[in-house]
Amino acid sequence: MTVRIRGVLAPVVTPFKTDLSPDSQRFIAHCKWLLSQNCGLAVFGTNSEANSLSMEERAMLLDELVAAGVDPSRMMSGTGCCSIVETVRLTAQAVGHGCAGVLMLPPFYYKDVSEEGLYRYFSEVVQRVGDARLKIYLYHIPPVAIVGITPKLVERLLAAYPNAIAGMKDSSGDWNNTKTFLDAFAKSGFDVFVGSESFLLANMRNDGVVVREVFSSRKFPSMIAALKQAIAIYADDPAWRTVRPPLVELTPEQAKTLTAELKAIGFTMPGVRRVSKE
Amino acid sequence: MTVRIRGVLAPVVTPFKTDLSPDSQRFIAHCKWLLSQNCGLAVFGTNSEANSLSMEERAMLLDELVAAGVDPSRMMSGTGCCSIVETVRLTAQAVGHGCAGVLMLPPFYYKDVSEEGLYRYFSEVVQRVGDARLKIYLYHIPPVAIVGITPKLVERLLAAYPNAIAGMKDSSGDWNNTKTFLDAFAKSGFDVFVGSESFLLANMRNDGVVVREVFSSRKFPSMIAALKQAIAIYADDPAWRTVRPPLVELTPEQAKTLTAELKAIGFTMPGVRRVSKE
Repeated sequence: MTVRIRGVLAPVVTPFKTDLSPDSQRFIAHCKWLLSQNCGLAVFGTNSEANSLSMEERAMLLDELVAAGVDPSRMMSGTGCCSIVETVRLTAQAVGHGCAGVLMLPPFYYKDVSEEGLYRYFSEVVQRVGDARLKIYLYHIPPVAIVGITPKLVERLLAAYPNAIAGMKDSSGDWNNTKTFLDAFAKSGFDVFVGSESFLLANMRNDGVVVREVFSSRKFPSMIAALKQAIAIYADDPAWRTVRPPLVELTPEQAKTLTAELKAIGFTMPGVRRVSKE
Repeated sequence: MTVRIRGVLAPVVTPFKTDLSPDSQRFIAHCKWLLSQNCGLAVFGTNSEANSLSMEERAMLLDELVAAGVDPSRMMSGTGCCSIVETVRLTAQAVGHGCAGVLMLPPFYYKDVSEEGLYRYFSEVVQRVGDARLKIYLYHIPPVAIVGITPKLVERLLAAYPNAIAGMKDSSGDWNNTKTFLDAFAKSGFDVFVGSESFLLANMRNDGVVVREVFSSRKFPSMIAALKQAIAIYADDPAWRTVRPPLVELTPEQAKTLTAELKAIGFTMPGVRRVSKE
């Protein structure tokens, strides 16, 4: 039996080149830096703009990451798409690479779908992947996906697939919800990761709440854009600012505000450095 | 200058085999039947479970449809994905085939995105496709996509791309919204299709509202499942019942109810017939 992944998993933002194609060199270097800060990696999640990537781009980036020597056993890879076929393809790839787990969104296009429909979706994925190493972390992020994960759904999936259903990531921001899942399923070995923005950057020297308030401030177009701007600032590498539409990067004025606010709270990103000039 | 597509476009449901793979033979036969009923085809929309297909499956089905002689000039093909790369790929394919237009969802994963972000998304798609034949119909379906199309966004896109932005499909179900777009943009040659379920099946002999009430009844798990069940009944072809998760098909009991209700209103699907035995 393999050891479950634990501790802090840093959501990994995805760097883009000026033509908006994924920048695998910066991506690999960033992942290596995060690992050096003693956290695990949550790649291809919401903060990674994973759903703004094509399935092929996601698959290619994961291949490149593993080929570059980034340890898959410290990695949870986001694989949930709207289509079973694509979810299975990405999940099988991650399992094949030996990733510690996969973070799986429910199919998020149709709203008000039934618990039975979601059960069939995840069930179909588990059966098609058909690999004893599969560890699924169900991704509950109702503010974005709208479609959520319910205790009853987890109960059914755990009963049917006790080995494959390893846990969930709860990004509801609602501690009562997290507690409900912990109370019901922790004894079954079901792990709950809390998707708090407080954990978004590794090695914080500050109060997480303060850092989170800076990044998620309504002064900035999105937390993702603010995070990328911060990396651009600390690595002295403006290429990091780039986001894919529909997200927009910070304006120069907003970037100045962010710089000042991060400085005011004494924020640091030790060891972050420029990867290469384009 | 080409003639714009007009009239009734029937949303085309997508048949699946028992292994949930797309059934291109039934799909082609169904499209031919719909065309014989004097309506155009809206393929790969919400009712088509398009977002439950992989990008590859959508591309393959469109290739097969055109290869089978189904006229692309009577077809509007859904191409909007969350990723620019996939939207561009499907859009370029549809334009290359000579489809009358493409029905384009906004990227629907991130919520509360800015108008600027959506403008950049569509702008990037138009520029990357880079084909004078491109005719985009923006897909406004807020109950499902949550992310919607605003008048200000249309104004900016029309100003920048007067030839590529051909119109919209308004599935908000809100006539006031439709009227707002018509009043503002009809004079610029911007066409608005109303995405009413009343038009879902061609050649209705009945009051559309009554038919709609039957299909969208809360007695059934979804309108899509009810539509497929109806085709299964009228074509005497149970294979048509299949939907992909997260949707679920009608139970035998629900199927009986649907049969009775359709019979009660004298509903007909003239010329629908069984395609083949599996």
